[in-house]
Order: sequence, then C-alpha cells, then structure tokens
Amino acid sequence: MRFDELIHQPTRLKIMAYLTGLGADAQVEFGTLQRELELTEGNLSRHLARLEKAGYVRIEKGYEKKRPRTWIRLTGAGRDALEDHLAALEELARTARYPGAAVREEQ
Amino acid sequence: MRFDELIHQPTRLKIMAYLTGLGADAQVEFGTLQRELELTEGNLSRHLARLEKAGYVRIEKGYEKKRPRTWIRLTGAGRDALEDHLAALEELARTARYPGAAVREEQ
Repeated sequence: MRFDELIHQPTRLKIMAYLTGLGADAQVEFGTLQRELELTEGNLSRHLARLEKAGYVRIEKGYEKKRPRTWIRLTGAGRDALEDHLAALEELARTARYPGAAVREEQ
Repeated sequence: MRFDELIHQPTRLKIMAYLTGLGADAQVEFGTLQRELELTEGNLSRHLARLEKAGYVRIEKGYEKKRPRTWIRLTGAGRDALEDHLAALEELARTARYPGAAVREEQ
C-alpha cells in the first residue's frame, strides 16, 4: 500500500491503468495507446521513458510488414506497484470520508 | 466524478484529505497542518495558495494571544471537488482491476 509519486502523475496513472487492463503479458502498440489515451506522440514517449526507467513497463521496437512498430507491456513490478498505489489511494479516500475510522479501529 | 489535476498533485491531495477529515466548517492552524503533514513552511504555503486561488480552501490571518496565526478551512466547493476526484480515482482503480466491467455493464 505504497503511495508512488511516479505512478501518481495523471498521464502515467492512466497509462498504467490501461496497460493492466489488457491482462497479464498482453502488449499494445504505441500508436494504439496514443489514440486510446488521446496523447501526443512526444507526451506519451516521455512518460513511457519514465515508466521504463523505473522498470514498470517494457518497450520493444520491431517491424510489422516492414513498418517500424513499438510495443509496450506492463512488467510484474509495474503491476505490483500500481496495485500498491491504488490501495494507497483507496486508504486515503477512506480516511478522508471517515476520519474517525483509523482511531475507532484501535479501540 | 471529475478527475481534478489540481487536487491530484500528491501534497495537495493530502492537504485536502486532511482538511475534509476535520469535518464540516472545522479549521486548522497553519503550524498544526505543517506538522501533521510533515511539510516545510514554504511548500505548504505554496500549495495552499494554489488551493485558495481555485476556491477550495479559505485562509484567514489573525492573532491569538498577540501571536500571528493563519487558519485554513475547506470550502464547500473544495469538499465537492475532492469528493468528485476521489470518485474518479475509484472508477480508475475499478477499471484497472476489472477491465471488462464497463463493457459488461452495457449488456
């Protein structure tokens, strides 16, 4: 349940949520991801580079019918980090709504 | 259920969650808020100014036993915006975990 500032950034949170929604070991092509999330090429590239550096996504370049393609998939570490971050957000939401909850649990 | 980039910033999200946890119309002194959230004076000031400009918090300066004091409270608009943002985060978490959920609902 760790709050992860890298994942928290709105665009990266949406990228991670999209990727985990694909299911285990699934990958998506850069252009598809760009269209789905309505991002510019530069913006998506920049955020993917940050996520790759953290080990949260794997990026593979290759060819499909002689056209260059870039494939992106979530790593196991990325999936775990996203799950932890979502749990941290839910805890924060719970505390915000029921401020006495944490104290009451101690009784 | 509106994703609010202003509130989403980690420090501001924690400030807003703390303030809403105080209950309706409650206020907190600047120094207390600074200690509770473990922020520097400059950092807290900067984020509170952003939240005040958006109309999400109200900041009042005054004196207590001749010492200058700054009081902060959440506005109704701030409470509504936080609630909307938390709902957006929960929706995002739900979609990330159960990617087919949104589609299945349509059937």
